[in-house]
Amino acid sequence: MASSASHPETLSATAAATAIRDGALTSEALVRACLERIAAREPTVHAWTHCDPEQALAQARALDRAPSAGPLHGVPIGVKDIIDTFDMPTRHGSPIYQDNRPDADAACVALCRAAGMVILGKTVTTEFANRHPGPTTNPHNPAHTPGGSSSGSAAGVADFMVPLAFGTQTAGSVIRPAAFCGVIGYKPTFGEVSRVGVKLQSGTLDSVGMMARALDDLPLMRSVLLGIAPTPIPAAPRAPRIGFCRSISWPAIAPDYQALLERVASNLSARGATVSDAALPAAFDQILPAHRRVMTFEAARNYAYEKTRHRDRLSSVLRDTVLAEGDRCSLEDYVAAILLGERLRDHLNGLLADRFDVLLTASATGEPPAGIDATGDAQCNAVWSLAGTPCITLPAGTGRNGLPLGVQLVGARFADARLFETARWIEARLA
Amino acid sequence: MASSASHPETLSATAAATAIRDGALTSEALVRACLERIAAREPTVHAWTHCDPEQALAQARALDRAPSAGPLHGVPIGVKDIIDTFDMPTRHGSPIYQDNRPDADAACVALCRAAGMVILGKTVTTEFANRHPGPTTNPHNPAHTPGGSSSGSAAGVADFMVPLAFGTQTAGSVIRPAAFCGVIGYKPTFGEVSRVGVKLQSGTLDSVGMMARALDDLPLMRSVLLGIAPTPIPAAPRAPRIGFCRSISWPAIAPDYQALLERVASNLSARGATVSDAALPAAFDQILPAHRRVMTFEAARNYAYEKTRHRDRLSSVLRDTVLAEGDRCSLEDYVAAILLGERLRDHLNGLLADRFDVLLTASATGEPPAGIDATGDAQCNAVWSLAGTPCITLPAGTGRNGLPLGVQLVGARFADARLFETARWIEARLA
Repeated sequence: MASSASHPETLSATAAATAIRDGALTSEALVRACLERIAAREPTVHAWTHCDPEQALAQARALDRAPSAGPLHGVPIGVKDIIDTFDMPTRHGSPIYQDNRPDADAACVALCRAAGMVILGKTVTTEFANRHPGPTTNPHNPAHTPGGSSSGSAAGVADFMVPLAFGTQTAGSVIRPAAFCGVIGYKPTFGEVSRVGVKLQSGTLDSVGMMARALDDLPLMRSVLLGIAPTPIPAAPRAPRIGFCRSISWPAIAPDYQALLERVASNLSARGATVSDAALPAAFDQILPAHRRVMTFEAARNYAYEKTRHRDRLSSVLRDTVLAEGDRCSLEDYVAAILLGERLRDHLNGLLADRFDVLLTASATGEPPAGIDATGDAQCNAVWSLAGTPCITLPAGTGRNGLPLGVQLVGARFADARLFETARWIEARLA
Repeated sequence: MASSASHPETLSATAAATAIRDGALTSEALVRACLERIAAREPTVHAWTHCDPEQALAQARALDRAPSAGPLHGVPIGVKDIIDTFDMPTRHGSPIYQDNRPDADAACVALCRAAGMVILGKTVTTEFANRHPGPTTNPHNPAHTPGGSSSGSAAGVADFMVPLAFGTQTAGSVIRPAAFCGVIGYKPTFGEVSRVGVKLQSGTLDSVGMMARALDDLPLMRSVLLGIAPTPIPAAPRAPRIGFCRSISWPAIAPDYQALLERVASNLSARGATVSDAALPAAFDQILPAHRRVMTFEAARNYAYEKTRHRDRLSSVLRDTVLAEGDRCSLEDYVAAILLGERLRDHLNGLLADRFDVLLTASATGEPPAGIDATGDAQCNAVWSLAGTPCITLPAGTGRNGLPLGVQLVGARFADARLFETARWIEARLA
């Protein structure tokens, strides 16, 4: 699909905002183009739980009459349906919340509105951003999963229904679906983006993240969410020092994807990057079980209301696997897992301060699996969720089924701006 | 007021639960006694924003017919009104939320219900648990503040309206009001108690805590909230090593309260404790401004919805002081403050692993000040909120106005059970 003025739905958020600012495009025309794309493709993709064309167009028309309120004025965004909106339902992917209409916007939604963005609608999430899937399909092949839990956000951005969407990540729920759908996914440093109004699975792990089709869009969104000046990504001052991190999940990664990652690493080295091995020490061999203990222990308490009052309306995978596992986890094991995560964070702080600008690693275990009854494996992401580091997945090619593969870049905590720089350097040399 | 079967509202939660289990008391009789106390005293104390006698009694009667569901079966608890309840309003101390009826219980409330506790009602909070006060007065003298932001919870427990209540703490909102009202306050290790359904001011700082009139009640509540076995507080194996921490806020502390703290320290030493100085190193001289930056930076983003859509219904102190300060704080200063807090946490981890069992410090700057237009100074608490350590305040006497003074005990992170032990040893020797 050509990215042109006649197809504004294909523009990046940055390009669309520039066109709106220059008077070459209206928010209304952009939103109308997105809505037409949704009308055409939604019967196949099923990315949305709520999208009311009149509600979206009314916002766009009002913004077209208003002075610019931010760097993405007039640009629409999709909102994962575990994130509250005062004027749309918030159903959490659960039958328990079919009639839920929160009194307030989540902070991240309110910040977008205050910056002049259009809330286009709510996107499909797995049940409570956990494992029980929604109806979304992969835009590249509807017989395959789009990944999860931010399924609709990844699919909607990939399918040109919306240039930006919010996801959330506890294990791999932003990076994995973005990689599966062939778009950019970004999980900020833990704690940077407000989670007020987001249904939390794990206070220790959950981050609000986002999907986009252009790297330039990430610092603009970040400026909206943090209330800081929007700064375009500067050129990296030098070729980056890249730590190639094969460890922990490497045996689980599909051979064609292993080959792609190795190829990317040697290509980047050939283009001037310093690439060396960054395997995690043996002290972190149990980091994946630790992540799982933190996630399930906290989920079993965080979903106390649903677990006790609406038990029969939970999926069996959530009730009998995840929450049951969290109920069985001892407090001692939970605390030990938290402390191992903190040691990992400290280790990575050192590694990314002294030796590397970025870690290069897998975004998932391979291409999106066939079927939409499961959303894939999060083990390549869970380790970084526990560490709280910022992560970006960039589209990096396709696998043997012709479906998307990404590369995941992991930056130093609170150095998201530097991660953008390095990602830009790498992106320019991935092709 | 005598603690007797004829006055069940004066019983501790533990004693009441035992009496209910033994058939000597019903939940209905206990709740009725609490409601009678509320009816008599509420016109002076103003602790509640919602308390419907029929709703409370219906819960009690149902629990009297049901098998025991937990160690506090049949016992009522008050819930700070920034914590969601599906069957009661949740007004956040703000005119914006006068009609807010959440769809679900907060996790901590659901866990109490599942353990057979009665949700007696919602207690007064300052506006969004920040500084603009509610109508609550100090039960010991209505011309004085009960402290805040968990004003109604502290006053209600102190005035024998309810044996237990939930508070939340961002700076000093559990420990300070508990000390001002002469009851026990407990802020658990950061992260241990679920905050799902609690209106967050600061994701980095906020903890759900509680007020009680007996130390024994704390491990029972903790067992309900964490889903662990209820374990009575064991006798401490030896006299504790106490670090007396005068630093940072000492000059702000009233002379009569300084004298009381010195007296407590020497008495405990005379009773066998090893008491030594535990001043914080100079590296932490700026810890209070760091706490304030974290709190205001995050609050300015967390209240984005209220700030942008209901600006004129915020108090001027919240809008023009707290949120404006957070808007002015740079991201760099915020991150530096987060990192200083983490260094403090690491320092205290070392101190409380190697040298001390507990730190002894001030719970507030002195007696509750006169007037209810402000809730007092949180500087003696903010440092521990930033460190994430568990804290308990124990009633320790009265000051020159005859109003309550407490002592604050600070334990090692994730060693809350050991803090209970040490607190029990100290409590027995405070008199």
